[in-house]
Amino acid sequence: MIPSPAVSGPLTIRYLSRADVEAAGVTIGEVIDAVQTGFLEKGNGRVEMPPKPGVHPGEGDNFIHAMPASIPGLDAVGIKWISGYPGNQARGLPYITGLLILNDPATGVPISVMDATWITGVRTAAASAVSARHLARPESSVLAILACGVQGTFHVDALRAVLPTLTTIRAYDPDPGRVAAFAAGVHSRHGIDVTIARDAEAAVRGADVIVTSGPILRTPHASIKAGWMAPGAFASAVDFDSYWDRAALRELDLFTTDDVPQLEHFREMGYFASIPPIHADLGQLVAGSRPGRTTADQRTMACNLGLALDDIAVAPLVLRAAEAKGLGTILPL
Amino acid sequence: MIPSPAVSGPLTIRYLSRADVEAAGVTIGEVIDAVQTGFLEKGNGRVEMPPKPGVHPGEGDNFIHAMPASIPGLDAVGIKWISGYPGNQARGLPYITGLLILNDPATGVPISVMDATWITGVRTAAASAVSARHLARPESSVLAILACGVQGTFHVDALRAVLPTLTTIRAYDPDPGRVAAFAAGVHSRHGIDVTIARDAEAAVRGADVIVTSGPILRTPHASIKAGWMAPGAFASAVDFDSYWDRAALRELDLFTTDDVPQLEHFREMGYFASIPPIHADLGQLVAGSRPGRTTADQRTMACNLGLALDDIAVAPLVLRAAEAKGLGTILPL
Repeated sequence: MIPSPAVSGPLTIRYLSRADVEAAGVTIGEVIDAVQTGFLEKGNGRVEMPPKPGVHPGEGDNFIHAMPASIPGLDAVGIKWISGYPGNQARGLPYITGLLILNDPATGVPISVMDATWITGVRTAAASAVSARHLARPESSVLAILACGVQGTFHVDALRAVLPTLTTIRAYDPDPGRVAAFAAGVHSRHGIDVTIARDAEAAVRGADVIVTSGPILRTPHASIKAGWMAPGAFASAVDFDSYWDRAALRELDLFTTDDVPQLEHFREMGYFASIPPIHADLGQLVAGSRPGRTTADQRTMACNLGLALDDIAVAPLVLRAAEAKGLGTILPL
Repeated sequence: MIPSPAVSGPLTIRYLSRADVEAAGVTIGEVIDAVQTGFLEKGNGRVEMPPKPGVHPGEGDNFIHAMPASIPGLDAVGIKWISGYPGNQARGLPYITGLLILNDPATGVPISVMDATWITGVRTAAASAVSARHLARPESSVLAILACGVQGTFHVDALRAVLPTLTTIRAYDPDPGRVAAFAAGVHSRHGIDVTIARDAEAAVRGADVIVTSGPILRTPHASIKAGWMAPGAFASAVDFDSYWDRAALRELDLFTTDDVPQLEHFREMGYFASIPPIHADLGQLVAGSRPGRTTADQRTMACNLGLALDDIAVAPLVLRAAEAKGLGTILPL
């Protein structure tokens, strides 16, 4: 006689530090697939994702956001609780810190707590890659990265995963040290010599794919001017519209975002003073209810602001990989 | 020369399991004081507490709620992520499970993750005790507990902490085993012989303080009828209006809640079909901007639905007590 499994032993969670999360070794391709499935579910109305509320302790632009999501199609439910404190870097602390809790969708019981910084970085680039599948020309070869921090680096990996023809990489960053470190990293991971652009214009002109990933500003510095973006190019604006002049935005044929109500929310807060009409959200592009690029000369843009579904789609991959490798710390609930 | 402290060593968090949280040994009096201070801050407009969004995986009444709050006056910021799955008890699992994350308000960095079930239980009773300070007669002597689960037990401790004259305790529960266990617990903690009431009416008639803490129902069972609640009595309805007949509610002179927008939100969801006008919220009572009981014969009620501020006010006490005792597990972020 086969003994029946215990209904409930002592409840435990698996804690994954940032080092554990990175050691789990989830690949960028796996992350892109998970984010894409998350947007397919959203496009089909099967994601529950309430508005992300925040608190704002202390001075200035400090925030801590709660980002809950339930994605039944991925058997995933949880929350990311993520802070951004602009003053942290001067204290020798990270700007972004946070944790993510995953629950068992069948019982609601927490099953894992993990550091959320790696997921936050990689899923943002993965969303750009999913957008690129629908908005970039498949033969795109020249990639321009403007601002070469963590997001610039993740975007090279994510965009080359979906557009392997991206073999020319241009980088611009006002900080020479940062652009040099970026170039060294790209060379070691992709075997590509990065072209360091002397200014934003040199990076953007003639590029097929443009990523702007600098600081998010309520009042854009608007460095990219009209006439620079080539016909047929695709841009992913990771830093809202901070890099884009109004006249340059008016040249776009297709402007998209990851979630329209969220973009409208930020408009009410004073961001995005002047953007083109929204052609589609990313869920609609993935689900096929709205078309992506339809001609080779359209100028297209994804302005994805980041959603809880990105994180909650990716976290189960990390947990499963960590379980398989025995990573993390098992703790009693 | 005194060496300056390191700005930032490796970041760590303290994880506290449910057993650690309970072993920290925070007293009910300390919890009541913290919750009272939280409501004082709220009453003075110094709490940031966005609406609690939720997700609802699976069937029926399953929920997981995100409850963030920032209480600068208590140097406290964090979030509780708490699930309720009605089907869990049949699986041998708790109905309520959840975790609470505390952050450093100065940097946003997570400093602790703790099991939230003990805090959820005790802070609910503490909020009733804070209400009782403003709404019960100070000489109240007869306490009636209707439904003798976890909340019934915590309420005896919390209400006796603020009303030590409560020396007669009556208990009613449809489950004889539960009421017997409750009575044994009260006897061992308070040295009081509990009177077991044969029905709700026997419990309520002549009581000075009435606690209803059964299951929350969209359609009240309305067991408590008009004419039973004595003049001058105070009731804390922990289970919304589930126990109260409409005509009995109409006898109330002062009806209060912990947060008016939250009560209105639940009304929109179909709860609280018929309640009296709201006299005050608990922050107003504590801050003194609205009066509590003004005469000895008013019938008063607190219908506190539970707020993130309750949890985030209490969690730092638990963390500090656990630190002092060396409890929990230190983990790298």
